[in-house]
Amino acid sequence: MSKNKSRLSPTSQPLNERINRSFDRQVKVAVTGLSRSGKTVFITSLVHQLLHGLEGTHLPFFQVVSSGRLRGAKAMPQPDMHIPSFRYDRAIEQLCGDPPTWPQRTNGISEIRLAIRYLSNNLLLKHVSPINTLYVDIVDYPGEWLLDLPLLELTYEQWSEQIARLCEVEPRLSLSEQWRAFLKNIDLVSEANNTTLRQASQLYTDFLHRCKEPQYGLSLLQPGRFTMPGDDLKDAPLLEFCPLLEAPEQLYPENSLYAEMKRRYDSYKEHVVKKFYLEHFYSFDRQIVLADVLKAFNTGYASFVDMRNAINMVLKSFQYGKSGLINKLFGLKIDKILFAATKADHVTPEQLPHLESFLQNMLASSHNDAIFEGVRTETLALAAVKCTQAAYTTFQGQRISCIKGVPIDSEKPVALFPGEVPVEVPMSEEWVEGRFNFMTFKPPRLANVHGSGLPHIRVDRALEFLLGDKF
Amino acid sequence: MSKNKSRLSPTSQPLNERINRSFDRQVKVAVTGLSRSGKTVFITSLVHQLLHGLEGTHLPFFQVVSSGRLRGAKAMPQPDMHIPSFRYDRAIEQLCGDPPTWPQRTNGISEIRLAIRYLSNNLLLKHVSPINTLYVDIVDYPGEWLLDLPLLELTYEQWSEQIARLCEVEPRLSLSEQWRAFLKNIDLVSEANNTTLRQASQLYTDFLHRCKEPQYGLSLLQPGRFTMPGDDLKDAPLLEFCPLLEAPEQLYPENSLYAEMKRRYDSYKEHVVKKFYLEHFYSFDRQIVLADVLKAFNTGYASFVDMRNAINMVLKSFQYGKSGLINKLFGLKIDKILFAATKADHVTPEQLPHLESFLQNMLASSHNDAIFEGVRTETLALAAVKCTQAAYTTFQGQRISCIKGVPIDSEKPVALFPGEVPVEVPMSEEWVEGRFNFMTFKPPRLANVHGSGLPHIRVDRALEFLLGDKF
Repeated sequence: MSKNKSRLSPTSQPLNERINRSFDRQVKVAVTGLSRSGKTVFITSLVHQLLHGLEGTHLPFFQVVSSGRLRGAKAMPQPDMHIPSFRYDRAIEQLCGDPPTWPQRTNGISEIRLAIRYLSNNLLLKHVSPINTLYVDIVDYPGEWLLDLPLLELTYEQWSEQIARLCEVEPRLSLSEQWRAFLKNIDLVSEANNTTLRQASQLYTDFLHRCKEPQYGLSLLQPGRFTMPGDDLKDAPLLEFCPLLEAPEQLYPENSLYAEMKRRYDSYKEHVVKKFYLEHFYSFDRQIVLADVLKAFNTGYASFVDMRNAINMVLKSFQYGKSGLINKLFGLKIDKILFAATKADHVTPEQLPHLESFLQNMLASSHNDAIFEGVRTETLALAAVKCTQAAYTTFQGQRISCIKGVPIDSEKPVALFPGEVPVEVPMSEEWVEGRFNFMTFKPPRLANVHGSGLPHIRVDRALEFLLGDKF
Repeated sequence: MSKNKSRLSPTSQPLNERINRSFDRQVKVAVTGLSRSGKTVFITSLVHQLLHGLEGTHLPFFQVVSSGRLRGAKAMPQPDMHIPSFRYDRAIEQLCGDPPTWPQRTNGISEIRLAIRYLSNNLLLKHVSPINTLYVDIVDYPGEWLLDLPLLELTYEQWSEQIARLCEVEPRLSLSEQWRAFLKNIDLVSEANNTTLRQASQLYTDFLHRCKEPQYGLSLLQPGRFTMPGDDLKDAPLLEFCPLLEAPEQLYPENSLYAEMKRRYDSYKEHVVKKFYLEHFYSFDRQIVLADVLKAFNTGYASFVDMRNAINMVLKSFQYGKSGLINKLFGLKIDKILFAATKADHVTPEQLPHLESFLQNMLASSHNDAIFEGVRTETLALAAVKCTQAAYTTFQGQRISCIKGVPIDSEKPVALFPGEVPVEVPMSEEWVEGRFNFMTFKPPRLANVHGSGLPHIRVDRALEFLLGDKF
């Protein structure tokens, strides 16, 4: 190996390159979703649309493209080296394979960087450097981590009380039975021991896993790492506690079960929640939250209520972030949040506005634009990859809109009327079994996808909301 | 949940408990091993011996026990809540099952805390508080992490040079062929791209994995996380680089492949190696390094040389730690290191001293007691769980020592002469194929193991060296 090598210092770069650099901008877009909302497919589509922005006419509402100012986009090595890469290459291979398959779900956090070259609209910048680069870092993380943030403002007692209240109604009442029965039989002031701590947390974790099962489809599952611990925390004591339905009535010593549970909750907040906040959340500029609202329709009223609670809890987190304790301590950059109902290709085009109003209604209970100082929120119904076509059929002699696609467990396309999306939230008694039955479809066969962007619904509007002001 | 509860403050504890507390002591023992040395079995046995210290006479050389001062030991909730627990309960269940099986290997780090109550020997303490408690925290981590520490003192260029030199001789020369061929064809000053970085690091990682295969049995594998990344770093860019056999001869720009490789190496040091140092290594009081020397005998000269290099590199790390840059920056507490040759029950009792001298000889090349300011080192041959019995057979009319046990792939016990352990390192030409063939055995059937400690060889001496001075 040669001994005499020197490093090219930044000052030895060509002058015009340095000038360009100083006008380059950067934006960090975080993407998360409430359980199985199609996050990986969404990011794959987002990246594909941007990489193929110059080809075709697939992004009419994304102005930097429709106005002809885009000059090109490419994937680049990402800046945060300790964050796993979002493997776009693997996902797009699966999606465009023969036969095409939905990409594998991701656990944990991942990141991808795109460099977008564009013609500046800014008169001043145009003069100095007509072509600018926007670096877009897209960060993908589990919705559970977002739902953990409210813990930062809750003591162990307050959090226990919240969970106890949730467990007073079905389906949590039945699902939590074994765990609650176990709690009744332990002495909270006795000396802490690993066996009891492990049993209690195991029963609570089993309960969370059952809440997550498709037939219950609950979203509000805390602590988030209990259902997806990751290798580095598996078997760690800070994942071995649970909320308690009652606090001890007498004084409890330092070495008691109750004191140990409290310590572990605090340690979870410190090592898991605050760590996520400081290492990641804190640096996000824009946030998109995906929700599979149609799945909640299929599952029933309880699943819908839980999703609504989760979404409103997320909104409150941003409130806390902007005006509460967290912001005072660490600050928060996020200035735009997009709530998106995914899989909008599973309803007929006429129903799209209904899906959007419905999502807006879900947010309405706690959401009021005025309360969010400095955070703009938006709702949108979209399909990251469109896997159905609009079609028509006749019903009692009338022409009626329907969709055509290949169901996930079939080989043949079907044309079907998927049901109506209500604009207002139905009363609990209206959620009769089988009223909603939105189907899951196979990905479309994409003959020449490298020629233009993936077929989608409103991903261009999402891009315009998230990035439009940066060009 | 009751709203009015108060926390018992430390000052409201009974006075004698508080006095006791102030004399309690704590020691953190770290256990690591060079690939597949039997770390999990060793820790399981260590814990079992301590928990059963009051029963039987299985620890003659552990003075706190043999002098009758032990009052009891038990497992406790561990202090470091973000570190996975060492699951002694699972390991002992497997080892004492019917049929018994070797416990599963662990990845990553784990911890277990034992509280040992003993009668003080100290005249002053005896007077104030006759029964004291020693908290022993045993921390288990992969040997690969220990072998990463030297990177802290190496630049990317220096480290690349070391690896390049290792790859000049067999078996690395052949095993690294594909990776080296790939490096020849890439342009180091061209713009960095994920595809090339991934291919280069993948080929280098494949090479490391092959080095680890039993037929090569190499120990010195850097970077350690390439062969055991863990969930949190899978697909992270800081695991996607490799050493380079040559540096570019011309100037290289900031965005070049070479510059990106360098940045990733530095990021690995910062986020992985230094993090391990600061979060864990830094706090260890005692260290035990296990090595399966017999496996190196079986595998051949190259495997032996590699193990010797690895052991000496470890020793150098502690030197660096005590007198070098690292200590100046962070300090280092470790004051005793035990190097142990495991599976000493695989040779006849007469060969034990040979195994120990051999291990001493392995260290001798760089090791000289005098150079370790403040670190005492010791070598020992031991068996964590003894799975053979001494027996005799006749050879040419003479009585000859042998061992009796159940081979791992058999159901019947055999009596065999396992071969002689050389006291001095044989010359490279003496390592003819098949000269050494030490066998692997099944764990013994332990009828009533809960009545006393697991059968072992010299674990009591290890305990005395590691903990004896703390009582």
